[in-house]
Amino acid sequence: MHKHRMMTPGPTDVPSEVLLEGAKKQIHHRSVEFQRIYSEILDLLKIVFKTSRPVLPILSSGTGAMECCVANLTSLDTKPIVIEGGWFGKRWNDICCGYGLETETIQVDWGKSAEPELLEEKLIENPNCSAVFVQLCETSTGAVHPIQELQEICFKKGVLLVVDGISGVGAEKCETDEWNLDAVIAGSQKAFMNPPGLSYITLSNRAWNAVRNSKHTRFYFDLRKYLDGYEKKNHPFTPPTSLLHSQLAALKMISDEGIDNSVRRHSLLASATRAGVKALGLKLFAEHPANSVTSVWMPEGLDSSLFIKKLMAEEGVTIAGAQGPWKGKFFRIGHLGFVDSNDIILTLSAIERVLKKMGVVIELGAGITAAQNILVKKGEYK
Amino acid sequence: MHKHRMMTPGPTDVPSEVLLEGAKKQIHHRSVEFQRIYSEILDLLKIVFKTSRPVLPILSSGTGAMECCVANLTSLDTKPIVIEGGWFGKRWNDICCGYGLETETIQVDWGKSAEPELLEEKLIENPNCSAVFVQLCETSTGAVHPIQELQEICFKKGVLLVVDGISGVGAEKCETDEWNLDAVIAGSQKAFMNPPGLSYITLSNRAWNAVRNSKHTRFYFDLRKYLDGYEKKNHPFTPPTSLLHSQLAALKMISDEGIDNSVRRHSLLASATRAGVKALGLKLFAEHPANSVTSVWMPEGLDSSLFIKKLMAEEGVTIAGAQGPWKGKFFRIGHLGFVDSNDIILTLSAIERVLKKMGVVIELGAGITAAQNILVKKGEYK
Repeated sequence: MHKHRMMTPGPTDVPSEVLLEGAKKQIHHRSVEFQRIYSEILDLLKIVFKTSRPVLPILSSGTGAMECCVANLTSLDTKPIVIEGGWFGKRWNDICCGYGLETETIQVDWGKSAEPELLEEKLIENPNCSAVFVQLCETSTGAVHPIQELQEICFKKGVLLVVDGISGVGAEKCETDEWNLDAVIAGSQKAFMNPPGLSYITLSNRAWNAVRNSKHTRFYFDLRKYLDGYEKKNHPFTPPTSLLHSQLAALKMISDEGIDNSVRRHSLLASATRAGVKALGLKLFAEHPANSVTSVWMPEGLDSSLFIKKLMAEEGVTIAGAQGPWKGKFFRIGHLGFVDSNDIILTLSAIERVLKKMGVVIELGAGITAAQNILVKKGEYK
Repeated sequence: MHKHRMMTPGPTDVPSEVLLEGAKKQIHHRSVEFQRIYSEILDLLKIVFKTSRPVLPILSSGTGAMECCVANLTSLDTKPIVIEGGWFGKRWNDICCGYGLETETIQVDWGKSAEPELLEEKLIENPNCSAVFVQLCETSTGAVHPIQELQEICFKKGVLLVVDGISGVGAEKCETDEWNLDAVIAGSQKAFMNPPGLSYITLSNRAWNAVRNSKHTRFYFDLRKYLDGYEKKNHPFTPPTSLLHSQLAALKMISDEGIDNSVRRHSLLASATRAGVKALGLKLFAEHPANSVTSVWMPEGLDSSLFIKKLMAEEGVTIAGAQGPWKGKFFRIGHLGFVDSNDIILTLSAIERVLKKMGVVIELGAGITAAQNILVKKGEYK
């Protein structure tokens, strides 16, 4: 018998109390009761996004929210710049392509982060660019991009920076208002501690102007409809009431912890994870690693897919593999959402046991001890 | 204290067993376990849709599935015909408009059903039409359209018939394969006895050809991605795992009842509801009333919105009002999904009590007795 532990960078483990809220009796979405719940959710979302502006819930996966940004913030007579540092950077390009947009790509090696100077150059070369697309955390590599610096550059040029914060918001520092971020999106199954099904989006005033000017065909993803709904404390279409019930419960937990404390917790758990794997002689994949996911090179000659399978089968711990061209080369430990110190220790301990059994030369206990030293030194995160 | 009874035409009441399945521990959507569940869902959906072809789950409201049809099945050089017999017929037009399509509308009076001869004429007048959009059941009026006859006409002309079966599939007779229906969509919060959040879509081979030829911009709603996922027993994006868990439980219940039995049950409950309100001297709004919802004229001089509020406040029963220009004029009793004979009786009894208290001249007990006679005469529906 193994308990199943989900240490993936989304979907993530969801607290039972949150899941049970989602199992409540159905209510009608055009009722006063729904409006009350929806209104509370809209308020709490602002806390997590660190913004005073509307945060709009969309019934879609994160990709739907990404498409929302492309459909509402671009126009065919301009050339978006896409910062492509992994699988999800590539998705920005794929969506733009689906919308008939020709893009300029800043290719960032997997595991590396965007260099602000390069964006500055690209913007000079491409005066026809009105929007730059990037990830806060590139989930496929575990690298964070320097959003604040990128935004400053874009702001000066009058260009929108569109931030996919799906695996970042709530885990990484992301000061939407303070940094003047133009568009930030997130997903319920990440730091929001809810099952997958909802995505969230917030826009700056500059971005709302672009929405009004967009000529792309759109209906379900027309953000003006959601803004109109926001003002009436209602959703433009039939919303996923059960997922909203559970989201409210999870948002209350996040708000009780405090959003800055939540980011600190993620930062501490990420540090401990990194210290743990390094103490086992493993190497980190990302140069600027994220708070939400730690990517680790598989020891030479071994296949990370096999390692992940064993970790699941023998120890009940699910972590993620590498995608696309990197399949088998590295693995990714998620520490996102409903995760604490004990989860990090148990995960590292399972990794130690499985690596040892696979014949990797490691010192049993070294990883978890290194993590302990971080977890205890920094004190309790709350 | 009142128990809350949801007698709306969607969202509908969901069995507790189904809700609790949705509260299960999260699983990863790229796992063998998920594939097994997803595969089972894909099989069961075919039973409900009465088709041997793929039925594709989309994470969106019903409107998203409607947009899927417009985005994938139309082209700018053709002129779709929209049969607009109510609020949701109008939505077909709104979405087409959002896609820059000029449409030809067959306006059907609210409460009436489409006349096949009129479609035949319109198709002759508009040789440039390649798709006709219609509802199986126009939820806003409670009228059903004669889908089989409409499809025969379209088929002869080589034109696609796109059927919004959101409130119909599982409740109305809808023989997707036998009638050669080109596109049928449905929603989880209707006869599928699940919370809102998922929509479903199935296409004929002719329709799939149109998908391949469509030039509309689309990414999230690109049905080719879902078909590809179908073949791999996987979803193209992050699917709403909890809603799929609960949907599987509900689909098993529907399959245990048998889809034809489910339609018979809805038909019986609708007959009983109609007999009940007529015995109270009330008049039906729809000429060809649906199995899923019964629309009833409010007695002259009274506002149905007030009646609905009282029914909720005094008796705990939620029914729906009239939308748009008909607000206040009629009310709609939903009998869709997880509903049985006792629900019909309790609803009619609550209606009797509230009408009486509002001063309407009715004979207390007449409505429920008339319903009883139907429910007992036709025997048990299963």
